[in-house]
Amino acid sequence: MNSELRRLLERLSEGNVSVDEALDALGNTYTDLGYAKVDDRRSQRTGFPEAIFCPGKTPEQVANIGVTLRDAGEVVIATRADQEHAAALLAAVPEARHIENARLLIAGRAPDLEGLVAVVTGGTSDIAVATEAAEVAAALGAEVERYWDVGVAGIHRLLANRERLERADVIVAVAGMEGALPGVVAGLTDAPVLALPTSVGYGASLGGIAPLLTMLNSCAPGVAVVNIDNGFGAGYLAALLLRGRQRRQ
Amino acid sequence: MNSELRRLLERLSEGNVSVDEALDALGNTYTDLGYAKVDDRRSQRTGFPEAIFCPGKTPEQVANIGVTLRDAGEVVIATRADQEHAAALLAAVPEARHIENARLLIAGRAPDLEGLVAVVTGGTSDIAVATEAAEVAAALGAEVERYWDVGVAGIHRLLANRERLERADVIVAVAGMEGALPGVVAGLTDAPVLALPTSVGYGASLGGIAPLLTMLNSCAPGVAVVNIDNGFGAGYLAALLLRGRQRRQ
Amino acid sequence: MNSELRRLLERLSEGNVSVDEALDALGNTYTDLGYAKVDDRRSQRTGFPEAIFCPGKTPEQVANIGVTLRDAGEVVIATRADQEHAAALLAAVPEARHIENARLLIAGRAPDLEGLVAVVTGGTSDIAVATEAAEVAAALGAEVERYWDVGVAGIHRLLANRERLERADVIVAVAGMEGALPGVVAGLTDAPVLALPTSVGYGASLGGIAPLLTMLNSCAPGVAVVNIDNGFGAGYLAALLLRGRQRRQ
Amino acid sequence: MNSELRRLLERLSEGNVSVDEALDALGNTYTDLGYAKVDDRRSQRTGFPEAIFCPGKTPEQVANIGVTLRDAGEVVIATRADQEHAAALLAAVPEARHIENARLLIAGRAPDLEGLVAVVTGGTSDIAVATEAAEVAAALGAEVERYWDVGVAGIHRLLANRERLERADVIVAVAGMEGALPGVVAGLTDAPVLALPTSVGYGASLGGIAPLLTMLNSCAPGVAVVNIDNGFGAGYLAALLLRGRQRRQ
Amino acid sequence: MNSELRRLLERLSEGNVSVDEALDALGNTYTDLGYAKVDDRRSQRTGFPEAIFCPGKTPEQVANIGVTLRDAGEVVIATRADQEHAAALLAAVPEARHIENARLLIAGRAPDLEGLVAVVTGGTSDIAVATEAAEVAAALGAEVERYWDVGVAGIHRLLANRERLERADVIVAVAGMEGALPGVVAGLTDAPVLALPTSVGYGASLGGIAPLLTMLNSCAPGVAVVNIDNGFGAGYLAALLLRGRQRRQ
Amino acid sequence: MNSELRRLLERLSEGNVSVDEALDALGNTYTDLGYAKVDDRRSQRTGFPEAIFCPGKTPEQVANIGVTLRDAGEVVIATRADQEHAAALLAAVPEARHIENARLLIAGRAPDLEGLVAVVTGGTSDIAVATEAAEVAAALGAEVERYWDVGVAGIHRLLANRERLERADVIVAVAGMEGALPGVVAGLTDAPVLALPTSVGYGASLGGIAPLLTMLNSCAPGVAVVNIDNGFGAGYLAALLLRGRQRRQ
Amino acid sequence: MNSELRRLLERLSEGNVSVDEALDALGNTYTDLGYAKVDDRRSQRTGFPEAIFCPGKTPEQVANIGVTLRDAGEVVIATRADQEHAAALLAAVPEARHIENARLLIAGRAPDLEGLVAVVTGGTSDIAVATEAAEVAAALGAEVERYWDVGVAGIHRLLANRERLERADVIVAVAGMEGALPGVVAGLTDAPVLALPTSVGYGASLGGIAPLLTMLNSCAPGVAVVNIDNGFGAGYLAALLLRGRQRRQ
Amino acid sequence: MNSELRRLLERLSEGNVSVDEALDALGNTYTDLGYAKVDDRRSQRTGFPEAIFCPGKTPEQVANIGVTLRDAGEVVIATRADQEHAAALLAAVPEARHIENARLLIAGRAPDLEGLVAVVTGGTSDIAVATEAAEVAAALGAEVERYWDVGVAGIHRLLANRERLERADVIVAVAGMEGALPGVVAGLTDAPVLALPTSVGYGASLGGIAPLLTMLNSCAPGVAVVNIDNGFGAGYLAALLLRGRQRRQ
Repeated sequence: MNSELRRLLERLSEGNVSVDEALDALGNTYTDLGYAKVDDRRSQRTGFPEAIFCPGKTPEQVANIGVTLRDAGEVVIATRADQEHAAALLAAVPEARHIENARLLIAGRAPDLEGLVAVVTGGTSDIAVATEAAEVAAALGAEVERYWDVGVAGIHRLLANRERLERADVIVAVAGMEGALPGVVAGLTDAPVLALPTSVGYGASLGGIAPLLTMLNSCAPGVAVVNIDNGFGAGYLAALLLRGRQRRQ
Repeated sequence: MNSELRRLLERLSEGNVSVDEALDALGNTYTDLGYAKVDDRRSQRTGFPEAIFCPGKTPEQVANIGVTLRDAGEVVIATRADQEHAAALLAAVPEARHIENARLLIAGRAPDLEGLVAVVTGGTSDIAVATEAAEVAAALGAEVERYWDVGVAGIHRLLANRERLERADVIVAVAGMEGALPGVVAGLTDAPVLALPTSVGYGASLGGIAPLLTMLNSCAPGVAVVNIDNGFGAGYLAALLLRGRQRRQ
Repeated sequence: MNSELRRLLERLSEGNVSVDEALDALGNTYTDLGYAKVDDRRSQRTGFPEAIFCPGKTPEQVANIGVTLRDAGEVVIATRADQEHAAALLAAVPEARHIENARLLIAGRAPDLEGLVAVVTGGTSDIAVATEAAEVAAALGAEVERYWDVGVAGIHRLLANRERLERADVIVAVAGMEGALPGVVAGLTDAPVLALPTSVGYGASLGGIAPLLTMLNSCAPGVAVVNIDNGFGAGYLAALLLRGRQRRQ
Repeated sequence: MNSELRRLLERLSEGNVSVDEALDALGNTYTDLGYAKVDDRRSQRTGFPEAIFCPGKTPEQVANIGVTLRDAGEVVIATRADQEHAAALLAAVPEARHIENARLLIAGRAPDLEGLVAVVTGGTSDIAVATEAAEVAAALGAEVERYWDVGVAGIHRLLANRERLERADVIVAVAGMEGALPGVVAGLTDAPVLALPTSVGYGASLGGIAPLLTMLNSCAPGVAVVNIDNGFGAGYLAALLLRGRQRRQ
Repeated sequence: MNSELRRLLERLSEGNVSVDEALDALGNTYTDLGYAKVDDRRSQRTGFPEAIFCPGKTPEQVANIGVTLRDAGEVVIATRADQEHAAALLAAVPEARHIENARLLIAGRAPDLEGLVAVVTGGTSDIAVATEAAEVAAALGAEVERYWDVGVAGIHRLLANRERLERADVIVAVAGMEGALPGVVAGLTDAPVLALPTSVGYGASLGGIAPLLTMLNSCAPGVAVVNIDNGFGAGYLAALLLRGRQRRQ
Repeated sequence: MNSELRRLLERLSEGNVSVDEALDALGNTYTDLGYAKVDDRRSQRTGFPEAIFCPGKTPEQVANIGVTLRDAGEVVIATRADQEHAAALLAAVPEARHIENARLLIAGRAPDLEGLVAVVTGGTSDIAVATEAAEVAAALGAEVERYWDVGVAGIHRLLANRERLERADVIVAVAGMEGALPGVVAGLTDAPVLALPTSVGYGASLGGIAPLLTMLNSCAPGVAVVNIDNGFGAGYLAALLLRGRQRRQ
Repeated sequence: MNSELRRLLERLSEGNVSVDEALDALGNTYTDLGYAKVDDRRSQRTGFPEAIFCPGKTPEQVANIGVTLRDAGEVVIATRADQEHAAALLAAVPEARHIENARLLIAGRAPDLEGLVAVVTGGTSDIAVATEAAEVAAALGAEVERYWDVGVAGIHRLLANRERLERADVIVAVAGMEGALPGVVAGLTDAPVLALPTSVGYGASLGGIAPLLTMLNSCAPGVAVVNIDNGFGAGYLAALLLRGRQRRQ
Repeated sequence: MNSELRRLLERLSEGNVSVDEALDALGNTYTDLGYAKVDDRRSQRTGFPEAIFCPGKTPEQVANIGVTLRDAGEVVIATRADQEHAAALLAAVPEARHIENARLLIAGRAPDLEGLVAVVTGGTSDIAVATEAAEVAAALGAEVERYWDVGVAGIHRLLANRERLERADVIVAVAGMEGALPGVVAGLTDAPVLALPTSVGYGASLGGIAPLLTMLNSCAPGVAVVNIDNGFGAGYLAALLLRGRQRRQ
């Protein structure tokens, strides 16, 4: 973008843009809805679009931000949507899909990326969060494979899927309770592992703090961690890793 | 003991003991050193002797409690001893062995127990704590096997020792950092697993809280947990489980 | 299992099984329902069956996993079931019993185990969690005795039941609030004590963290701890301890 | 004091004190050393003197505050003194006693109070903190009895001293690790129990947080808690309770 | 009680009681309802009756325990009762009063105690918890005065009531949010202060942990702390302090 | 006020007020409603009125306190009002405005202050809390500008508004999740920054603890922090800073 | 700066600066030492200079950054300096003063500000942190008054200084342990209060977390909080508030 | 590896390997030193070698593990080495380099990887941790650029380096205190950001927990987090991401 800056300044210096246009170009790369400044050229800057985090927003706000993004040609992704958010967005952006167990709405799909993302869960109860990761990665262009319920309590289930997992370029490992899955996976394969802790559990799981800590303390290197239940973040980063792979090819 | 109580009361009722003797029998089953009330008949009551927790005690106190226990015929176990504690106890109870990396002193050995305790560690850095567990279990009569550095970062090291581990009657699984070892072990074998978290790690290991939480949240049942770095407790309980096994045979 | 592995390899080497059969035998010891990989030979490997942790699963998933386990001849245990989970499972596995205060469903019973498990609670409010422990231990074959409301606030209630408690081979001690019961019990008897903290309490009990810490810091050795409100885990381990006792007799 | 205020205003209204004297009387009831405003009439206001908390103060500051209090006729109590603090205070107030294991210095003694304070500890390692409580209560006029090492791991040691404990008017129960002693004591006797948690322990004792939580969650009513290792506070309050007892007799 | 023990043993020795009667006397000082072992002679042992902690108990259990206590001549106190608990208890013990804002039911009143308890709150929102303390102290025989909304944000409101507060023998200081009231009160008066933190607040009040910590760290000695929102405990201990005052007069 | 005190004492000394009047003047600067001691001359003492914190108060209490403040000529501000609180207050003080998304009611407005307060939010979901801050500052007399959704995830949105922000005399920076906005703002401008963390977020945001910690650890000086979601406190302090500015001009 | 930006762009458009000069002006407002990018025009941008946080820096780095700032005409402030840091900086910037108890070095003084900062401490042990605040505020141009040891344990000491405190434009209130001082001060005066928690205390003070929470939960509005022991931040902000006051007069 | 498994089984089936050889191949892919099971073929399995975590290991253990890895042809990386560890390893593996400020030793270098890793720090004090990351990534084959001291307190320093940062394929963003750098960087660029929190800070930074939480809650997606001060993990993962990029090209 600084090279864009140089070009902009050169054009200004050459009289091809006015000072006001230059100021505009430097400052106004968003659409201002008052309650939101929609970063609707984000995919140009950082590779992927902004998402709509629904909690604390009114259904109308969610719908309007969705329309703004859609009209700007961005993929629309709304996370943690309740029924009111979903209804309003579906009314405004009818092409959106509603993945209910993941509280997710998606409209559009980014161009295909090369490479494979594997999403694996420790248990069946982690599927909702893992689905958010898988759907987001797919919407951003990735090919995604899903392996549910291969946690360490019966490690043969993981070992039985090892060869297939090894084909993945990025593995998103999703687990609640003790959260040991990502570390074990990272010790078995040479793909980078995105560790996604979930709030599945009770008592000393502390709402997901326990698996989060487990993953941060992984003995096996090659693991990095996102926030508890942050399927969006894991899916986004998985796609970004694939995208980086082909950026300069 | 209540049946002892009945017998005591019957003997009192029959005039075979005096009221003072009965009061004494009901109350005075320890040796009072002033600063310590040494529970020197503990192995009669709970199966195994009291141990000496050294921190906060003077070397003289440690030595005197050691002598009292030794003279009562108990195994002497002193934990978390610093150099002064160790010197004083060795002077007073010269038959004691000093296992320095575990900050442990032991004199005597309880009768042999049937069965096998396996002590496994996630890493080399956990050996000090694991040694405390292994030595205590051995001093209380158990046969003990040690498997160091079989953590989940390279799970083939654990799987390679699986058959031998399966011979154990109790497994003490020792791990710091992410603490995933006990859960994985419990999913592989039918022996009860005593999970022993260590303070090995840094940052988000929070001095051992992270592996402690991991172990408490183990997806695999068959796991119970002791305090961070509590090798004594794990070794004691492992021996107690063997002892229970033969109590009524 | 490694000896099984040797036998398998020998049979392969001798041409008695094909490579595909061998691969199958090494990898596919579960039933794959897509959303769940049911560990339906777990009791062969670890002694006892897998349980169904209901939260985060749909009623249909719970029912189908239950059927899969039942059909494989396993005891079916579903924990933390809400009303929908329970209805679906009862429809699919009508022989199941629903222990409502413990949110537990059980179908089948493992062969009898030798030995006695005592489950004791500090208060009346701990009964739900304690019942989960007692019912699970019983379903896995144990003889179970229950002692409710013998907490340390009126320690004579515990002392009055001491003789009967001493007949137990394993004691599950259940307490919320201050959680002192397991430590006191462990100081009175020679049975191993499984400490089960509950979330009964308020304020500084921190949802059960306070009794959990109390139990982990028990001065009396012979205590190991499971997760807060984890009646299933305590009952499972209690039965496993009895089972170990007779494994090689 | 408000009745003093009335009297002061009456005397002002009658011309017996000047406005400046009245302002002075309302405001200046301390000695200002610059770095400290010594509350040297505190025992008139709240019954007992101010103590000197040494950490963060220079030895000279400690010594000068000590002299100021002594000269005002107050009992001098300096807590958590290191060797430099102690040396400076002993040089300035040579009549002070230095109780080294409790890091405490005391000069003077308040008038005798009626009633008995019992200080009990769970273990030998708690003696330093308990000594601070006992010495402070004694310096403030209380009769004090000490019972060391009667913790719940061997509860017969406590029961054996029960009758003597019942003579106490206030019991200070001191414990680290699991901290169960105060609750058990409160269930056995009708005296109020001041619970004093210590930092004795390791791992999940969290520097005394574990016994603190235990004590706050005591099932037995009749317990109130002071800060971790706050022997001064417990001893002060114990004496204050005796003092209240005789305030209006 | 040990002197009772001596008398019991003497009577046994003299043949005045049988062994079975002696065993009974030593062990059975409670009424066993199965789900509860009602400590119905607690006021003989510790001065005051057991209370019924309602959460986790069924309405029937609460009602039956209430009847048992009432029939034993104890004051009946049920805390944290929801509407079902209250209805069941009122049906079974119709003489009970229901203090709804404090979720408290009380039947009966202990004999009058000498002395005065002052209950003060920092704010209006703390009144529910403070009322629990005041009502419990009154039911146990204390004279109680209430001072609502005298917190430190407008300290003149406290100073204006100082003279009246100084007449109290025990002060229960109730505060949420920052929880500074007890420390300020303790610096103004010579009565012991029972600090009662409430969960009033939000954000960094952490459900009452913030005022709890404030009170534990009070610079002014003469303060001891009970659990968050534990009005029962504060009122009970306040009455116990008055009772102690007259125990031996 | 002490100069008022001097004047009062002089008038007493001169016989112009009685002792009772003086006592009254010294103590009774509030209106006592029983359940509340309304600090209705607070704006004289500290510059601004007391607010009504609604949680834990009955609607009637809120309404009556509101009437008392209104009748005393104070601005009425009620925070965290639920629908019942709002209805009761609106009935009693019909001139109040109800800002529903901020759960805030306000009646009256303080005299205009010189200077400008800018309230900025990291995201759209922070608007409710930010609105509380903005409305309170405005009610206390400040001119307020609002900049919503300028968080650091798209920092160009903040930079684009930088020049306008620089006109502010105080900036209230509101953010949840990572809470980085206040530190970035403080590094860009020379206005003091009041950092207001919100509970917007999930998982490791810990109900707002994460942004609170971020703000406390700000590398950029010039930042001070208020409680999580404490829009009232931030708005109040922002107005107070403007007011101080003109106090002595 | 954006108006500077407009001017820059206009000059570029007019050919008065080259593209490279414009790029330089937009980007390079710091001195790059490799290991540090010294923000040596910070006082132009944010009103006051950058400070040197010493921990983790080598003495040479501290000295070189100090020289860079001094040579740029900035006030040099180095915080948390150990003896090596101090020696190196004093050698390189000999005009610096070393305030040892505050681990602070200062060279230079900003122009005088109008208005008065009062720094008050709860106790003598808080003086080191308070001195850091006072010295920094003074170095940045403020007039500063210091009031040590006026904490709430003897609130008359605070009330006696009330009139003088009321002359202050900003009050920095410094306290450890319970941390109640800022809230009480804010209830007494109309100046904004910067609350500065210290790590003075032990046990449940949790290294200053307790007073930090107290201050964040202050019932009295008009308080904002800085990090534990952050005397620099409090002093800086206090001076910034005075500076704002006169910015546009 | 499962395809290797198939090949192994086929060779066994064809009689080309013996059963013992097959067992060996399945199990023994490490070198057993007793105290360590060196995973010396890890780079074949997961792409990169095992590292030596020094704390808790004796110098001899560190040296011997180093020799074993070196002799197996692996890159040797020893982290958190103290002086004794370093001396022993340098004696045994003299070709190792000792990067003292990062407590790191490295011998050997993996083949060059395509792509660029940028390591950026918020401040000068974060350099030690960042150097660990940079050196590890370089040793594993990456080209690495370092940008020190570009934190958000003076965000122009970051913006000035933006164009160069945009050339990176992976960015490791290192920050202590508030930890806002990774989120801001992720909002500016399209490279994946590995967030590395450091323990630089004091008070409410809680030893690095504050920046860790900040990074986990990053509003900008494209960020994943490693443990506090885990430079090794960040550098390893950065190299792994580059390696993945070229794995299948």
